[in-house]
Formats: sequence, C-alpha cells, structure tokens
Amino acid sequence: MSDPEAGNQRDPRGLTGEQVDLNADVGESFGTWRLGDDEALMPLLTSANVACGFHAGDPGTIRATCELAREHGVAIGAQVSYPDLAGFGRRYMDVTPPQLRDDVTYQIGALTALAGAVGARVRYVKAHGALYHALSRSPEQAGALVQAVLDVDTSLTVVAFPGSVLMEACERAGLHVVGEGFADRRYREDGELADRREPRSVLTDPSDVAAQAAHLARTTGIRTVCLHGDTPGAPQLARAVRDRLTEEGITIRAFTRP
Amino acid sequence: MSDPEAGNQRDPRGLTGEQVDLNADVGESFGTWRLGDDEALMPLLTSANVACGFHAGDPGTIRATCELAREHGVAIGAQVSYPDLAGFGRRYMDVTPPQLRDDVTYQIGALTALAGAVGARVRYVKAHGALYHALSRSPEQAGALVQAVLDVDTSLTVVAFPGSVLMEACERAGLHVVGEGFADRRYREDGELADRREPRSVLTDPSDVAAQAAHLARTTGIRTVCLHGDTPGAPQLARAVRDRLTEEGITIRAFTRP
Amino acid sequence: MSDPEAGNQRDPRGLTGEQVDLNADVGESFGTWRLGDDEALMPLLTSANVACGFHAGDPGTIRATCELAREHGVAIGAQVSYPDLAGFGRRYMDVTPPQLRDDVTYQIGALTALAGAVGARVRYVKAHGALYHALSRSPEQAGALVQAVLDVDTSLTVVAFPGSVLMEACERAGLHVVGEGFADRRYREDGELADRREPRSVLTDPSDVAAQAAHLARTTGIRTVCLHGDTPGAPQLARAVRDRLTEEGITIRAFTRP
Amino acid sequence: MSDPEAGNQRDPRGLTGEQVDLNADVGESFGTWRLGDDEALMPLLTSANVACGFHAGDPGTIRATCELAREHGVAIGAQVSYPDLAGFGRRYMDVTPPQLRDDVTYQIGALTALAGAVGARVRYVKAHGALYHALSRSPEQAGALVQAVLDVDTSLTVVAFPGSVLMEACERAGLHVVGEGFADRRYREDGELADRREPRSVLTDPSDVAAQAAHLARTTGIRTVCLHGDTPGAPQLARAVRDRLTEEGITIRAFTRP
Repeated sequence: MSDPEAGNQRDPRGLTGEQVDLNADVGESFGTWRLGDDEALMPLLTSANVACGFHAGDPGTIRATCELAREHGVAIGAQVSYPDLAGFGRRYMDVTPPQLRDDVTYQIGALTALAGAVGARVRYVKAHGALYHALSRSPEQAGALVQAVLDVDTSLTVVAFPGSVLMEACERAGLHVVGEGFADRRYREDGELADRREPRSVLTDPSDVAAQAAHLARTTGIRTVCLHGDTPGAPQLARAVRDRLTEEGITIRAFTRP
Repeated sequence: MSDPEAGNQRDPRGLTGEQVDLNADVGESFGTWRLGDDEALMPLLTSANVACGFHAGDPGTIRATCELAREHGVAIGAQVSYPDLAGFGRRYMDVTPPQLRDDVTYQIGALTALAGAVGARVRYVKAHGALYHALSRSPEQAGALVQAVLDVDTSLTVVAFPGSVLMEACERAGLHVVGEGFADRRYREDGELADRREPRSVLTDPSDVAAQAAHLARTTGIRTVCLHGDTPGAPQLARAVRDRLTEEGITIRAFTRP
Repeated sequence: MSDPEAGNQRDPRGLTGEQVDLNADVGESFGTWRLGDDEALMPLLTSANVACGFHAGDPGTIRATCELAREHGVAIGAQVSYPDLAGFGRRYMDVTPPQLRDDVTYQIGALTALAGAVGARVRYVKAHGALYHALSRSPEQAGALVQAVLDVDTSLTVVAFPGSVLMEACERAGLHVVGEGFADRRYREDGELADRREPRSVLTDPSDVAAQAAHLARTTGIRTVCLHGDTPGAPQLARAVRDRLTEEGITIRAFTRP
Repeated sequence: MSDPEAGNQRDPRGLTGEQVDLNADVGESFGTWRLGDDEALMPLLTSANVACGFHAGDPGTIRATCELAREHGVAIGAQVSYPDLAGFGRRYMDVTPPQLRDDVTYQIGALTALAGAVGARVRYVKAHGALYHALSRSPEQAGALVQAVLDVDTSLTVVAFPGSVLMEACERAGLHVVGEGFADRRYREDGELADRREPRSVLTDPSDVAAQAAHLARTTGIRTVCLHGDTPGAPQLARAVRDRLTEEGITIRAFTRP
C-alpha cells in the first residue's frame, strides 16, 4: 500500500487504474497586462497550454511561463490561435488552410525555442478560442492544423474535442490525439457543450465542477480535463477538482511527459 | 587547369584560396505586399537572411522563402529585428536586454519550425536595420542577442560587423561569428560605413559595387558580403558581383552548410 | 449649348442627364511596402477610398493620399475594414456589433484628422474586402456600420451594393447611401457578382471593362462604379473607362463634394 | 463664507485663489486585459488622459472611457504614444518627425470620433511614457507633436513638463500649454524628476503624495498634477490628494472645459 501506483490498481472502491490529466490555459498575459494567476495555478496542473503570441503571450511571458511549468514538472503545450490580439482569439477568422498551417507552425516554433531556452520541451498542441471551435467542424482548418503538426514534429500530441472533425483528422493522419472534457461547462444530452450564451452553461459551484471532472475522468475517450485559468477563483477550483479526483482514486497524470 | 578548385590554388595573380559568401535580405514581403525579387535573387546567393515576422515576413512568406532557399542550396539565416512592422525595423527601440533576448529567441524558433517544415535548417543569425546598428555599439543589446543564440542553438553562426561590440561579445562567448562587408556602401577611412544620409554613401554603379565586393573578399575578417535585395536592379547587381569575384579567382561559398 | 449641364439634357444620342462616379481603393501601401500606383490613378477618379490603417495604410500614407486627392479635387472616403493587416482585410472576422461599430468609428476619426491636416474632408464611407461582403448579408454587422456613421457624422454618404442588407439599413436609418457597380467583375443573372474563384469572373479586356462601366452607369440604383487600383494596368483601365463614358455622353462626377 | 469661490479669496492662511487640475491615465485596458480601476478613479479627476490605441486602449475601451469621463464631467485628453503595444509605449523609438506628427494626428482623430460618438470632446493632448520623456529633450519630436496639434485643432491644450523643450515649442507656436507636476515622484534639486530606477524615486505614503501635490499646486507654472492610475491603491491616493488640496483651500478644477 505504500506504493501509490500499486494502490491505484487495487482501489477498494474498484476505481482501478483510472487516470486523467488536468490542463489549463496559462501565459496569457501580454506586455504590461496580467491575466490569470499562473503562479498559483501551475502547481495544480499536469499540462500547461502556453499562449504563443497570436491571441496572448509575448516572448518574455512565454519564457517565464515555460520556466514555471518546468519547475513544477508540468507538460508544456502550444496553445495556438488565430492572429487576433485585440479579440483574444475569440473571433472566428476565415483563414485559408495554408495560412492556418503556417501560422500554427510559426507559433509552435516560437514556443519551442523559448521552452528550449529554459530546458523544457513542447509536448502537445491545443487550439484556443474560436480556432478550437472551428476545428471541431471545419475539415479544412482541422487538416491545416494536422499538417502543421506533421511538418513540425510528429511526436507532438494533439488535444481535441471527442468526436470532433479534428480528432478524426488526427487519427487518420496517425497523430497521437487525446480527447478533452470541460470541468466547468454544462454538456447537452447529445454530448456537445451548451452554448456559453445560454443561462447556466458555465458551472460555478466548486463541488459541481469537481463532480463533473470526476465523471469526465471516467468517460471513454477523455484523457484530459480542462480547467479555466482566467477567473479569480481558478486556483481554488483546480484544488477542489484535484481533491475530488484523488478522493475517488483517480490518478492525476499528464498524458505526455513533462 | 580544368579543375576550378585547383585553379584557385595556383592563381597566376596570387589570389589563391580566397573565398567569400554572398548574403542578402529575403522574405521581406508581408501579407499582400511584395518586396524584392526573391525568385531572381536567390540563385545568386550563398546565404539568405530570412525575415522572421517582426519587421517583415509573415508565416506563409517565411515558408515559401525557406523552400526557395532549399531548392537553390542556399544557407538560411534568421534576420532578426525589433518588433516594428510599420517602421520596417529601421527605428531604434530602447528595448531591455531580456526583451531583446526573448524577441530574438522567438523569431529564431518561428523560422526554425517553418524551415524544418520544408526540410531545411537555420544556420545563422543576422540582425536587421536599426538592431544591426545598435549591436555594433550597445554591449547590453549585443549581450542579449548572444544570450539568445546560446539559449537556442550554440551551433548557429552570428554575422557581425568587423570590430563591432557584437563581434567581441560573440568571441567572448565562444560563438562562431563571421565578419561582414557591404558591397554597395561607401566606407570611411576609419573603416566605418558612411552615413546613408551623406551624398554618395551608396554605390550604384555595378562595376564599383563589384570592385568593392572583390576588395572586401580579400579583407581580413570579412567572410560574407551583403548585397541589397530590395532595389529593382538587385539581381543584376548580384550577378555583376558574382562575375567579378569569379573572374578574380575568388570562390563564392557559404560560411555555413546550406 | 455652352452650358454643359444643359448639354447633357439634350444629348443628340439620347443619353440625357446620365452621370456616374468613379471610385477606387487608394492609400493601400503600408510602411515600406507599396501597393498600387496612386499617383497615376488619382487624376482619373472622382472618389478615393482611402485605407484607414486596419487592413492597409499607415498614418503617413493616409496623409499623403489625402493630399493627393485634394490636389486633384477627388472626394475622400473612409475605406474601413476588419483589423487584419496580415490578411489585408480579406478574411471574414466574426466581430461583435459593438466592436465593429467602434472599429469603424476609430477609423473614420483617424482619417478625418489626417484629411483635415491637409485641408480636406471625409465625405463617405465604404467597407473593404471581407467586411464589404459581410455587410451585404449580415444585419448585425450592417447595423453596426450604420450606427458608427450616425454617431460620427450623419452627413457622410455610405457606399453599398444595390439590394444589400447594408443599403436597406442605411435607408431605414435615413442615411444617404449610393449603389455601387463593379466595372471589371462579371455579374450573374441574378444580379450578384460571380465568385472570384470561378473562371472568367474578372474582366480583363479594357473594352469589356469599359462597356460594362457604361452599362452600369445607366443602371437604376448605381451611382458609382468601382475600379481596381492594385493591378499593374489599373490606370490604363481607368482611362479606357473614362473615355468610353465620355464618348457615350455620361458625365463623370463625384456623388459628394470633393 | 457660504460661497466656496469667495471663501478661497479670503482664506485665513492666505492661500487665496489657488487652483489645480488633477489628471491621470485612463482607458489603458486592451481587448480582454484590464488595467487600472477607471470606474473608481474617474470621479476623483478633473482631466482624463485617454489612451488612443498605440500603447493601450482599443476602440471599445476608448468609447467606454469617454462615456465615463462625460458622465463625471471630466475633461478628455488624447494620451498619445509611440506605436508599441508590446512595450506599453515605454520604450524610446527613433521615429522621424513626419512619422510622429502623423501618428499623433491619427490618434487624436480616432479619439475625437469616439468621444464625439458619446457626446464628448477632446480638449487636450498629453504624451505617454517614453514619448513624454523624449518631448522634454528632443526639439525634432516636440516640433512634430506641435505640428500635429496645429494641423488638427489649435484650440487643443498641450500638457508639458515645465521648462521642457515641448513647453517652449508650444509657446513659440502660440499653442495653449499647461505645466504639469507629479504627485508621487520625487524631484531632484534641479527640478527634474528622480530616475525611476533610483531607490525612493516613487512616493508611496499617501500623506507624502498629498503634501507634494499641495506643494506643486502652489508652484509657478504648474496647472495640473498627475496621479497614477495603474496601481492598486490609485483611487485611495487620489482621494488623499483631493482631501489635502481642499483642506488647504486649493480649488480642484480642470484647465479646460470638460
């Protein structure tokens, strides 16, 4: 019983072998402007989606964020976006597939160099904001992201919404892809996320969020649960999720190496 | 005498074994805007300074430029700059050393990924515009660029003005650095470039430019000669320089591998 | 018969009283990058759509373009766009109505001050690229542009595609709006423009373009004909159009005061 | 004695007729990023330096800030800057005088339109960050700002550091200019501000700041006192200053109409 790994295998409640990753968006400050409390949040994560300068993040912020991730043994992912600082990447842009492929390649490369400068590596790619949503339904844009990953480093994992066009495109291309769930967003009966503009589409009660995270961790096809990093209580919420997962015997572990 | 290499060794004029690299700024288009005739210029170069998006160059342009360089066996360098698209990187900016270090790292990384996507590699770093000039006199900014190269890839060569603060900083840090001359800029007696705003500071007659290039190629401490790529007659000028160098038995060869 | 206005009324060929405005996009250079030949094109126009810095145009370019327009007695319009320099405003962006309203207001204001600095005035507003197309079908975005004009200066004219959502929104709001035709774009039978990606969607033969311009000038609801300014032969094409219109007795006149 | 104005005239301590303006930087949020607590600070000001989008502020923020200023009867000024969002305008840029003139014109115009949209007007111009400092010593850059104001609206007031090159340039050009003091910055014996990098160059104790504000209000050539808006305790500090000024019989009043 002193071996935590072994302990998981023989959990008295039968919750054996389950494990999940916790990811959040970090490094979303820009210049003089701060966003999120990365110092408090980072120790609670296993994967850090680092903004690459297109929707947020400047080179200094990127480097400092990678350093923080490395110190806490957190895996670094490229949080790639449309080029839209003023809109924080939340506005759909009708970019062409070659433009998107090259924009994504550029962002991954920039992050890779800054991560390397502090002795860390980029392990995965996750799209941000409007691009994330577009990749769920647009085969052209999903194909462009897949091509960028194929071009840059085929060992990178891609984070995708289960059942999305992106997930299929990754699988077809032979890329490693992991399904993602959202701890604090309400799901509709068909498995899609409720629209943010609907009432009660965002869960705010810590115990609700924690319960949903635990449920997601046991859902087929979900390997990583996303927490939000840009709200004041984000670290508290992350802690509630961690406590609940641990309590239920679910191991919190990155889906890639740090 | 049919072996050109052997011929160089026994040149009747005694110009034996001399070799020089020809570099020029390329990939300086941005979005819809074209600059320079890279298609015509590239085959005449041995090293291509590719803009990285801070003063010019967008991801699509960068990738296409790297592809062109690879096709012609031309070595790729990161043409790094201050973040100043509107001013084309020609305006001095009082950035802090950490900002400059991180901006340079970001640019090298972005270029590295896009070069890699087309099967090419970044071999060297050369500063653009106002940053180039600042690196000749500012130990702080020169130190920041050196640190970026140390952080990213110590096998990268740095291009520097002979006798500049940057050249000394590279040598002190143990980085490979090569001295650069300018074929079409008039030199003052003290070895500095004449100010662009002075009359006749820029050479325009092809035979003058070619003669100066040949002279520079024999100058101690100069391994690469810079040609300008953004003037209408740039390819013609480059050809005149190549012809003259060949005529004088000087081998045109990259200072790094392509 | 010495009165040109009267002359138009009694044209022997029966082409009485017809008049049309010729507009083109100008001021689309940015920083070091040139686009179009504004010097050659401006004298041939009656209305100049001046880029305001969001898709093209920097403050120096804007001022110089306004000066050129004033010298030639050409009316100045604000060519407003999505904030997308890298994409030249050609990519649809899902901006919110308040964002669009404020972005348009900002652009009109910036242009107004630079026009005023050279003794000129902004007379109208025309959307650029993807925004132009969005305003034909999106009531939300069209309403946002109308609101900006209402907020800034109700005496500004709006240029719109005949039958578009924007045209209706302007009329409902009581704004002065003029319908626009395209001299070098093929029209489908339903009055819509043929998609640019279709073959032969762009007319290139000067006599075809001139003939279509003349036809448009006689079409109900069209007060201004758009010429393209960013192609090498743009001034020649503009001249062909002017000659044909004059030949057919159609007066070329701005729809606003210069 | 019930007439506060009259009361000032007969102050028992002899502090008769003194009045001063309180200005602060506002509207420095950008996109998703917040900076400062404009809601709390605005009611305490008489003049609001509104960022115009070059170092901070996007069109939506500008409009909302102008609306807030209008609601509180606070005069609106254009807080103009170098084009440097990533550096928050704090890095000197070696722009040419025509570039600076046109950049300043552009910013004033953009703000003017957004202020007008909410029924307010721009009354004055104040430079931000590195530009503010450059205008104290560079006749070229000071001349460029003066030219912009002459071009746009000669009724605008300019805020300048007493004895600066800018103040002289404004006076020579016949522009209305007011001298500014800094409540929370230590002054050297020669009247210059102590360098921010020196220890104790910034006053943090509210009573020290308030005392210095009162002292400045009585200093010849100072008509407006600057408070900082981007620190957590800014509103509290502003209140301490107001209380002290009122206590000493100094009227707080804008140097222009709201």
